[in-house]
Amino acid sequence: MLALRWDGAALAVADGPEPAGGDGLAVIDVTLAGVCNTDLELIKGYMGFRGVLGHEFVGVVADGPADWRGRRVVGEINFACGSCPTCGRGLGRHCPTRRVLGIQGADGAFAARVAVPVANLHAVPDGVADEAAVFAEPLAAAFEILAQVRVEPGSEAVVLGDGKVGLLAAQVLAGAGARVLAVGRHPDKLAVLAGRGIATVREADWDRAAADLVVEATGSAAGFQLAVAATRPRGTLVLKSTPVDLAPLVIHEITVVGSRCGPFAPALAALAAGAIEVGALISARRPLRDGVAALRLAAAPGVRKVLLEP
Amino acid sequence: MLALRWDGAALAVADGPEPAGGDGLAVIDVTLAGVCNTDLELIKGYMGFRGVLGHEFVGVVADGPADWRGRRVVGEINFACGSCPTCGRGLGRHCPTRRVLGIQGADGAFAARVAVPVANLHAVPDGVADEAAVFAEPLAAAFEILAQVRVEPGSEAVVLGDGKVGLLAAQVLAGAGARVLAVGRHPDKLAVLAGRGIATVREADWDRAAADLVVEATGSAAGFQLAVAATRPRGTLVLKSTPVDLAPLVIHEITVVGSRCGPFAPALAALAAGAIEVGALISARRPLRDGVAALRLAAAPGVRKVLLEP
Repeated sequence: MLALRWDGAALAVADGPEPAGGDGLAVIDVTLAGVCNTDLELIKGYMGFRGVLGHEFVGVVADGPADWRGRRVVGEINFACGSCPTCGRGLGRHCPTRRVLGIQGADGAFAARVAVPVANLHAVPDGVADEAAVFAEPLAAAFEILAQVRVEPGSEAVVLGDGKVGLLAAQVLAGAGARVLAVGRHPDKLAVLAGRGIATVREADWDRAAADLVVEATGSAAGFQLAVAATRPRGTLVLKSTPVDLAPLVIHEITVVGSRCGPFAPALAALAAGAIEVGALISARRPLRDGVAALRLAAAPGVRKVLLEP
Repeated sequence: MLALRWDGAALAVADGPEPAGGDGLAVIDVTLAGVCNTDLELIKGYMGFRGVLGHEFVGVVADGPADWRGRRVVGEINFACGSCPTCGRGLGRHCPTRRVLGIQGADGAFAARVAVPVANLHAVPDGVADEAAVFAEPLAAAFEILAQVRVEPGSEAVVLGDGKVGLLAAQVLAGAGARVLAVGRHPDKLAVLAGRGIATVREADWDRAAADLVVEATGSAAGFQLAVAATRPRGTLVLKSTPVDLAPLVIHEITVVGSRCGPFAPALAALAAGAIEVGALISARRPLRDGVAALRLAAAPGVRKVLLEP
């Protein structure tokens, strides 16, 4: 069977073994497969993957349960164990021992045939062409934004980056009723969105007005900084790409909440109720005239609160 | 009036001008003021502040509206303009032209007297000693976590860092019914929490089991990485301290949502409805046997989706 393999050093199309079926797996004749930027990262060493690349596909079930055979399908890419606590919480896509199609521990779809758990299959509706169905996986990743963040109709959203992820995310947000501004560097790509009635602007011409919701889809560290600056106070920044040092946030879909000053009323109520121990937090009390030494003391290791008394 | 001033180069206690009242300001005789780590950062150059330090205080109103005079008060530290769109949305603490007591554009409370907008004052309940009331500001910042994140009773929370912020945050979360594990390096500080029935562990002995909610209160870049690792998939990490490169997230209280794979059902439904333009995203279609060249093409600037056909 022909397949596009990465062996850790070289990329080659070559004949190789057929994928094994059985054990809850379906074998699918691949009709079309899509190249994702993740594939390009994998051949630079990301994840240390070795094997057949490819996780976006549409195909026809060649081997598997009778009711699936011959059906046109797409497939979810995370192969969960189904029995661990994470899976038990309905978070199979985050199963700690998962394999991921063409990314981690499972040969992918840049091949004549691919094996995928039957539980991961979705039948493709008749009206959806193969050329559209092959986008099911990246489009699902765009819909993940709606699964994670409440997008109010009429709310403002900025999508940074006009790559494939950005173009899909902008459309999904617009479909949810957000007033989307797509910011990119490629007029031809932005034109795809403009053709759907979505506002677009070239990054160089953008006034950088902040929005409540910003989607970072540039994949660059600079894009992350730009996205932070484009997010309103108390706003939400969705990371759809993985600048290196924040990759764990994306992989584990962690929400990071910046938190600063807060409400005084509950604080005073808690103090009045004696609900919070603060006396033990005081290390020292100094007259204001000794303020310089007091700040030095406060900076010393192990010192708690230093109080100044005018 | 005696005050502890930072002039950008040196810290000194010296006589200086009295704070001006009027124009919505109350002048307060400071009873006690607390030293915060932010003060220690300011004298290293943070925010470029010059003036009287100090933003945690309790005092008695010496000058101001008649109904406030003589009352014991604490004060919110963000002086909002009250008329901009951000203030109009109820986010005065994020007013873009705000001054911040002892931090930005406003002399602080390490002084005999301090001027604070009347709108920022809170009367201190009679039962609360000055030594407790002086914690109102940092304790309010701890309560901000409950304002931003839904903390379910019985849920697991890890607080990283046993400094003042961590000790207050752990107590607030425990008060909200969370099962808190406080992780720190100082047995004497952790003992404060243990004395309140809160589970504690020294960082060196910690099994690093992940939790749904993690509060980063170490103030170190290493703490941030540790916090990320300690957050469960789909969990929430609250940043209560400002490792340098993520400071804007904290200052603007931005929520960063890592987002990865998503639900296929709405993706397929949207494709079936023709709601998402994907055809225009296809740049090229190549036979699988040309896969190596196809991946090279996909990596070229401006190229959208490349499809492979077995």
